[in-house]
Amino acid sequence: MPDLYDVAAIGNAIVDVIAPATEEFLAFNHLTKGAMMLVDEDQSARIYARMQAGVEASGGSAANTIAGLASFGGKGAFLGKVADDQLGAVFTHDMKAIGAHFANAPLVGGKATAVSMINVTPDGQRTMCTFLGASTAFADEDVDKDVIESAKIVYLEGYLFDAPLARRAFAKAAALAHGSGRKIALTLSDSFVVERHREALLGFIEGQVDLLFANESEVCALFRTTDFDEAVSALRERVELAAVTRAAQGSVILSKGERLTVAAEPVEKVVDTTGAGDQYAAGFMFGLSRGRPLQQCGKLASLAAAEVISHYGPRPQVSLKELAESKGY
Amino acid sequence: MPDLYDVAAIGNAIVDVIAPATEEFLAFNHLTKGAMMLVDEDQSARIYARMQAGVEASGGSAANTIAGLASFGGKGAFLGKVADDQLGAVFTHDMKAIGAHFANAPLVGGKATAVSMINVTPDGQRTMCTFLGASTAFADEDVDKDVIESAKIVYLEGYLFDAPLARRAFAKAAALAHGSGRKIALTLSDSFVVERHREALLGFIEGQVDLLFANESEVCALFRTTDFDEAVSALRERVELAAVTRAAQGSVILSKGERLTVAAEPVEKVVDTTGAGDQYAAGFMFGLSRGRPLQQCGKLASLAAAEVISHYGPRPQVSLKELAESKGY
Repeated sequence: MPDLYDVAAIGNAIVDVIAPATEEFLAFNHLTKGAMMLVDEDQSARIYARMQAGVEASGGSAANTIAGLASFGGKGAFLGKVADDQLGAVFTHDMKAIGAHFANAPLVGGKATAVSMINVTPDGQRTMCTFLGASTAFADEDVDKDVIESAKIVYLEGYLFDAPLARRAFAKAAALAHGSGRKIALTLSDSFVVERHREALLGFIEGQVDLLFANESEVCALFRTTDFDEAVSALRERVELAAVTRAAQGSVILSKGERLTVAAEPVEKVVDTTGAGDQYAAGFMFGLSRGRPLQQCGKLASLAAAEVISHYGPRPQVSLKELAESKGY
Repeated sequence: MPDLYDVAAIGNAIVDVIAPATEEFLAFNHLTKGAMMLVDEDQSARIYARMQAGVEASGGSAANTIAGLASFGGKGAFLGKVADDQLGAVFTHDMKAIGAHFANAPLVGGKATAVSMINVTPDGQRTMCTFLGASTAFADEDVDKDVIESAKIVYLEGYLFDAPLARRAFAKAAALAHGSGRKIALTLSDSFVVERHREALLGFIEGQVDLLFANESEVCALFRTTDFDEAVSALRERVELAAVTRAAQGSVILSKGERLTVAAEPVEKVVDTTGAGDQYAAGFMFGLSRGRPLQQCGKLASLAAAEVISHYGPRPQVSLKELAESKGY
């Protein structure tokens, strides 16, 4: 198959509800700051009723990454499941409006489109309560062979390890991708996801993953250590290429025995950290798909992350292509 | 009845879809910059399909005003009609989350919640295509006597003159308000609304309106003139109190033969003019309901308008109470 896409991503198709929140709100609702908690429909309604007035925007980790890739001028495809409802229409519209391929039929007569309630504290940290709804209906028959086999990189969202059907979809995507000489990338998504599915993730990483994205707490959770260097050493033995983000301390790229350090792009004020990791992955894979050296991939990644945390919302608000050009990256 | 509310507002209950747009987009879709065009369900779908990726946020002119009032620390009530759908739930949540009274039952089995597609050009101007949907089902039985009779000011949105049922609701609200010694305020909303319903608006203004809000083009359309001073003189003879906004030139307050001028609050960069008039009305009525002098009402109004045009979205993103205090207004 020809290279139609730089990246094809599989993830939860989610609409975000983003609102400011106080520390007291997190405590009252037993939420761990910075983490993602899964909630059912009833819990979702209860938490939403207590949230402040907000805005709605298409989200979903891997979908945000595709939006970032498109903003760099890359060509992306997204695979995921919305419901046949208003928020599903919003998600679908936004995917198509950025020029990404998104063709999975919406779920009819089942649960509603997934919603993530994102509570942003004054320090810019985001704490998420996610109702997965229709997105858990994504199954292996939704993995479009033609899309997977024509993408340079197939990117998978670790959050999907919570959905049993999706794990089979991952296995299918990995088999198709490797069968046609494509690369598989995975993001660990969240340290609680790692704790819930540690063995399965380790097995998948060793067997299938060519490029791993993680942050510091996720990689430490994966190897049950609090020592970052120990975690990084363990990771280096298991994957060909990895990028580990460390918030303001920048990121570390591991490649065939090499360990590169990339500084974080300076940010005037951190408004909302939602999407930081997603945009990092977007910049990194855009660079990689265009054959850029790893250090430059890391700089593009940091630039995209810095843009998204400087405003509310999980997707870039300026052209990352123009931003990168203006910086000479 | 006791004073439970500073302002009770009747308006279209709308969720905004806000996206950047080019001048070419406006031309291609035959849209007049800065205006509001009504669209049906099919047109709405066609225009949405062509729009860029956006964000969704509760809107509606009078509802935005109530949100601004609440941000100043005022007590508001909103009357309007959403549908029993996801966007209706978003609108309802946001009204309650700001502490406003909103108790109209959603429309079941009818049209969807109203949506306004707001296209923001690089100059910050917004051009709106509105599908009124369920909001046109608002009728006189939805006018809650207890709410109207316990509000210092009853604020009506001129956009509702497009909805025949709502005009009867206005007549009921005006009768109830004046019967209990309350004031009626009206905003002209849009120059095309004024052109469509000029005679009806003039009749309503002369018979019922105590406080009129308009911008320059609306007041000129009302009196079929291009001469601002002529329009203002004609208006002064018809209402006890009026505030006419002139964008960067500030505003003019007309009261019993007096004509006060209020400067616009400086804005670093105009990002999105959506909600400027709504927030002006919020600041003005907050001041008025707290017995502030007219000049100060105008300053609070200008401050609120300046805040909302400095970011995307129709409602304040900071506490207007704290902002006003920091300025000493």
